[in-house]
Amino acid sequence: MDYASGSPVDERVLEEMMPYLSKYFGNPSSLHSYGFKALDAIKNARMRVGSLIGAQPEEIVFTSGATEANNLALIGTAARYKNRGSRIVISNIEHISVLNVCKELSRQGFEIKYAPVDNEGILNLDILKELIDDKTVLVSVMSANGEIGTIQPIKKVAEIAHDRKALFHTDATVAVGKIPLDVNEIGIDLMTLSSNDIYGPKGVGALYIRKGLRLKPLIIGGGQEGGIRSGTENVPGIVGMGKAAELAKVEMNGEAERLTRLRDRLIKGILDSVPESYLNGHPIHRLPNNANIRFSYIEGESLLLSLDELGVYLSSGSACAAKTLEPSHVLLAIGLKHEEAHGSLVFTLGKYNTEEQIDYVIKQMPGVVKRLRDMSPLTPKELM
Amino acid sequence: MDYASGSPVDERVLEEMMPYLSKYFGNPSSLHSYGFKALDAIKNARMRVGSLIGAQPEEIVFTSGATEANNLALIGTAARYKNRGSRIVISNIEHISVLNVCKELSRQGFEIKYAPVDNEGILNLDILKELIDDKTVLVSVMSANGEIGTIQPIKKVAEIAHDRKALFHTDATVAVGKIPLDVNEIGIDLMTLSSNDIYGPKGVGALYIRKGLRLKPLIIGGGQEGGIRSGTENVPGIVGMGKAAELAKVEMNGEAERLTRLRDRLIKGILDSVPESYLNGHPIHRLPNNANIRFSYIEGESLLLSLDELGVYLSSGSACAAKTLEPSHVLLAIGLKHEEAHGSLVFTLGKYNTEEQIDYVIKQMPGVVKRLRDMSPLTPKELM
Repeated sequence: MDYASGSPVDERVLEEMMPYLSKYFGNPSSLHSYGFKALDAIKNARMRVGSLIGAQPEEIVFTSGATEANNLALIGTAARYKNRGSRIVISNIEHISVLNVCKELSRQGFEIKYAPVDNEGILNLDILKELIDDKTVLVSVMSANGEIGTIQPIKKVAEIAHDRKALFHTDATVAVGKIPLDVNEIGIDLMTLSSNDIYGPKGVGALYIRKGLRLKPLIIGGGQEGGIRSGTENVPGIVGMGKAAELAKVEMNGEAERLTRLRDRLIKGILDSVPESYLNGHPIHRLPNNANIRFSYIEGESLLLSLDELGVYLSSGSACAAKTLEPSHVLLAIGLKHEEAHGSLVFTLGKYNTEEQIDYVIKQMPGVVKRLRDMSPLTPKELM
Repeated sequence: MDYASGSPVDERVLEEMMPYLSKYFGNPSSLHSYGFKALDAIKNARMRVGSLIGAQPEEIVFTSGATEANNLALIGTAARYKNRGSRIVISNIEHISVLNVCKELSRQGFEIKYAPVDNEGILNLDILKELIDDKTVLVSVMSANGEIGTIQPIKKVAEIAHDRKALFHTDATVAVGKIPLDVNEIGIDLMTLSSNDIYGPKGVGALYIRKGLRLKPLIIGGGQEGGIRSGTENVPGIVGMGKAAELAKVEMNGEAERLTRLRDRLIKGILDSVPESYLNGHPIHRLPNNANIRFSYIEGESLLLSLDELGVYLSSGSACAAKTLEPSHVLLAIGLKHEEAHGSLVFTLGKYNTEEQIDYVIKQMPGVVKRLRDMSPLTPKELM
């Protein structure tokens, strides 16, 4: 139940990738049949990824993943449009790649402003509006948060940004394929997508760049991807992401319904059976596959290891930030204390999770939590 | 015969990658069994890639490919060590990614000096020595050139660089796995490696960074790869590159001998049977798999298309620079005229080429060349 950290590649995706690993190994830039075959495959993938978010194929730039796409979106925009202004406004629960890029941009002289979220993780639009001034070149707010699952009102964010002539980027890594997102309907200028989060292979991602915008490239070389992202294309990876996008478009609605049912069963099951357990994030505006649950008097990491032994695999926050050992900045931003943040678990469900698995976790959880609480000096007597 | 543009993934590599696409899909940063499995796989790959070039595992940073590795090597070094000096010295036949990164660095205030090569593509060490001054922070010279195959005297280059306290980077994309390269024996500080060039998957590469050096990262985020390269690791890709490196280490010598035999048969066969055809590059100091042949009074691209129809797939230069339509900068640098450069073909042989294929190409070439020459107004009568 840790799909946000890593997902298996869908079998149908793998099937479509395989020939490009073995038989069709051409370079899309080559002037012969092998090259043309690879070029066609990439064109097709670009169309499929675009189609998932209502974009034109030529608005899709493939990258090595969501982190690179976030880097390109922020650094590429800041460098290219710095004559328009030096302020960048983001939410304070963005992914670590957005946060750390902004720290670097701040060292380069950009002024970064952080818009806060409320206790359920929803962005405060009034404060956001105040933070965006005429010198604001970019507003970056994620479509949904991977840890607490909260879905942001990005259509309103886009309007607010555009009112001040700022560009709007959304990191949609965990939202794409889970909830419908249309770049034109919402008004998105730049959007980060990840392949693995839609059951495509790792090592691929994409940045949607609205036609007419021109970013400064991050990786320079042979001018692939319209000059925005050089380097021989990861053809099998891109083919895989394309197929994954096609499947996501067709299957998203049904799967979202199924996941919502499982998620709600999981949340209710745990909150009902484990005393002093609480849902983090928004009860309704949340990703269909996300449950973030806080257990008082517990260290999340001990809980992870105990559950691992029972064959249950979870996360205590973003895997991407696991190295920091700091409590999740997202949980602190919604007002949790350090110890509350440390006692929270992230469940991210996926297409191979079953009701039986949910029930198994619900059954195991009270015992595991109790055992750990029994060992903690902080646990009140009535919970032991 | 265009392996430098794109290579199939070795079956044994694919076999080792497959479980990481389907079954072992964990994130190496995750604190559970799936994560640990992925982390172990990456550690193993790091060891194998290091072993191929005599490096320690922790000196290997995985990237999305050679272009990114070249970008990281040059930009990362320039940014980190700019207090040491602002000059960068490279050869004038570097890969387009190195050249274009240097153009960008030049715009940022770095002083780029280009060391010339002789008519066979060998770097002029005397001029190189003169160009490297006390303010030179980095010298970047490729191990071998992918178009003309010429192998550079990089051990001497390293010594010259180190004499002036400059760091030495070598783009070994096309050389690794073809000729033995040991970072310590040669004295390399930074080395670019590509996965697909050793029959690993596309979309992966690595930068060797000598212990003690610290580069400014290009892609910022969760701090993966020792903080030098953020983004969720492309686990199956990295596993594939690791296996490819292991195979290259074992099989390189025997395969190099076989390829040298095929290459020499091809060169002799064509030069003997096609009038006014010439070998570009060095006759001896060249990659075992490379032949670059110039045909007078011919447009390389017409030749490519005619050969394509016969099932022979070649390149007229670096696929990475195919979009420019300019004549190859490498061929101009060794003194060819524009029309000579345009009439040159690159043959890069690989492990699935056979003697029968070589003989087939030798047999077809005179007829194809004659047909094209017959149509050209430039062709002298005696060649028609």
